[in-house]
Amino acid sequence: MPFRFEVLHTDPSGARLGRLETPHGVIETPAFMPVGTLGTVKGLTQESLEAIGAQIILANTYHLFLRPGAELIREMGGLHKFMSWPHPILTDSGGYQVFSLAALRKVTDDGVAFRSHIDGSSHFLSPEKALEVQIALGSDVVMVLDECVESSSDKARTAAAAARTLAWAKRSLAYFGAHGDSQRQMIFGIVQGGAHRELRRECADQMVALDFPGYAIGGLAVGEPHETACEITEEVVSRLPADNPHYLMGVGRPEQIADYVARGIDMMDCVLPTRGARHGCLFTWHGRMLIRNARYANDPRPIDPECACPTCRRYSRAYLRHLFLSREILGATLNTLHNVYFYLDIMAKIRNSIGFGNLLGFCSELQARLVTSVSD
Amino acid sequence: MPFRFEVLHTDPSGARLGRLETPHGVIETPAFMPVGTLGTVKGLTQESLEAIGAQIILANTYHLFLRPGAELIREMGGLHKFMSWPHPILTDSGGYQVFSLAALRKVTDDGVAFRSHIDGSSHFLSPEKALEVQIALGSDVVMVLDECVESSSDKARTAAAAARTLAWAKRSLAYFGAHGDSQRQMIFGIVQGGAHRELRRECADQMVALDFPGYAIGGLAVGEPHETACEITEEVVSRLPADNPHYLMGVGRPEQIADYVARGIDMMDCVLPTRGARHGCLFTWHGRMLIRNARYANDPRPIDPECACPTCRRYSRAYLRHLFLSREILGATLNTLHNVYFYLDIMAKIRNSIGFGNLLGFCSELQARLVTSVSD
Repeated sequence: MPFRFEVLHTDPSGARLGRLETPHGVIETPAFMPVGTLGTVKGLTQESLEAIGAQIILANTYHLFLRPGAELIREMGGLHKFMSWPHPILTDSGGYQVFSLAALRKVTDDGVAFRSHIDGSSHFLSPEKALEVQIALGSDVVMVLDECVESSSDKARTAAAAARTLAWAKRSLAYFGAHGDSQRQMIFGIVQGGAHRELRRECADQMVALDFPGYAIGGLAVGEPHETACEITEEVVSRLPADNPHYLMGVGRPEQIADYVARGIDMMDCVLPTRGARHGCLFTWHGRMLIRNARYANDPRPIDPECACPTCRRYSRAYLRHLFLSREILGATLNTLHNVYFYLDIMAKIRNSIGFGNLLGFCSELQARLVTSVSD
Repeated sequence: MPFRFEVLHTDPSGARLGRLETPHGVIETPAFMPVGTLGTVKGLTQESLEAIGAQIILANTYHLFLRPGAELIREMGGLHKFMSWPHPILTDSGGYQVFSLAALRKVTDDGVAFRSHIDGSSHFLSPEKALEVQIALGSDVVMVLDECVESSSDKARTAAAAARTLAWAKRSLAYFGAHGDSQRQMIFGIVQGGAHRELRRECADQMVALDFPGYAIGGLAVGEPHETACEITEEVVSRLPADNPHYLMGVGRPEQIADYVARGIDMMDCVLPTRGARHGCLFTWHGRMLIRNARYANDPRPIDPECACPTCRRYSRAYLRHLFLSREILGATLNTLHNVYFYLDIMAKIRNSIGFGNLLGFCSELQARLVTSVSD
């Protein structure tokens, strides 16, 4: 089997140490997936991603569908070959981006009609289309199209979206069964239901009944308190099969990652390290640092003296501040290198803690160290 | 002596193979110096510059004077330490940039009053100030302030600028003698005189009489025919001491580099590879390539199959075109990596040709291969 998920060890907290085998290599879990929207993790070469130990990246179906187009990528031998990343890739379904278009999209049971944010051209994304595109991209893990609602939506609206997500999940499985290749790609279902535990429970149970090889939790950490996100995560995971990978989509802050792992999450992705880096927001073992701050103007120290990333091994805060204020490309590159390394490093330390059966101790340490901000 | 220039071999053409020892390492000459305006070669890490074999970079006094300021860089231990580039650095005098400000500057015999292109603040650049700043930066090679005139200037105007350049060169030597350290920095005089051979001869002779450790030729390749630039170069070099390095400032196109070397030039710098890269103009052994061209949309080949740069070893034209059209940072990085490598590679091949006594053969080959454009 090209795909195999194995839980090697379970921590008293419920955290799992595991490995996910894919046709493009093994991912140690829990894993953090840097976001490579358009087939590039903004600012980093593929070489540098390899050097800092990224094992899997996430790419966005919506963005690649518009530019350069799925057919071109298929013609070029798939996304791995196109971007020269011979390691695992997970693609989202495009749903999150399409639903974020607000006024530019219209949802029906069939799918979502939307206009491109680039040129206003009209497109239609259905559960089948989302998979057709991801099959063309050839990513290792593909996601079903789900309906994402605003966190402010009421229960009825959220329930309707969860119901539609389930209906779409069935169609997705049917399409993937007919056109996909389970030896080449692994398909994940997505549990929705907002901050409503009973909707989440229901959606999880029905999604599990569809028997996906992996499950994701969508629509969390979108504004509700962290405690709520943790509770919902725990609730959903408790109903997912222990033998399948559990992916929490779009989270989170460095100090929160371990909390989700402690609730049985195996995979996460987040734009915070990459987007933050480009805006000069750096994550450290002593909290967040805004590199533009005048206090760093003549600071010869690395971002974080405890960090072994290529940026911290060579460059000073003073230089990084200069690059940031001068809007130099190298600033974005070095900041991103640090932040992504930092996330991967936290995840590596989390895996170590699970191995030693001490994840909850590590959670407290993270919380105590990271909630302060160097800049404040 | 921390500084030593040695001519190892002279080609029948007049080209010299040499080495320039500096406190920060040896430069094999003829050398190409990538431009690192603000203390960064735009888009490249210092690690990648080392990996592709850059032995010296050029930084701009004008830009660093405005941001982050020379005093800050001095406080941080000098430019080498500030930017973490422990290899040779040459700084220009700031003159070229200041004179390019046109309406924002006013020249007198004292120096140049100018307004910053960033915030309009008022500053004054004199021969002494240009050196004060470069001494603070701590670059290995420092340049005197010269007066640059438009290539359209008449002979009288050009002669006046050359005369002022000479007067400033004397003041520069006096200032450097009093405040500089010839064990730490090497100072170059600059020969001006436009496209007028007799002005160039006169300026060269008088500059040589001042006895600089190295000489530069400024104000060439600014619009006049390439043949004229070659003739002037030959004329000037014939009057410079053979034992000192000869630096031709701000040139040139890939197919022209060897022509200057054949006239006795040892050092060159140019923004073409870096600036061109950011605009999608790539240099190859088969001419220039505009990566945005639709013909590359599904082209799986590297930029140049003959090129061994990190970009060509891994990435396709199709991917680079996608990155360029999507304005992704990685596009600028990979394009720059290729172009700078290409210039360094040409220079390495030039050095080889000189070693084999066959530079003129290489000149013809370059001419024949590079004048076509892949995109045209």
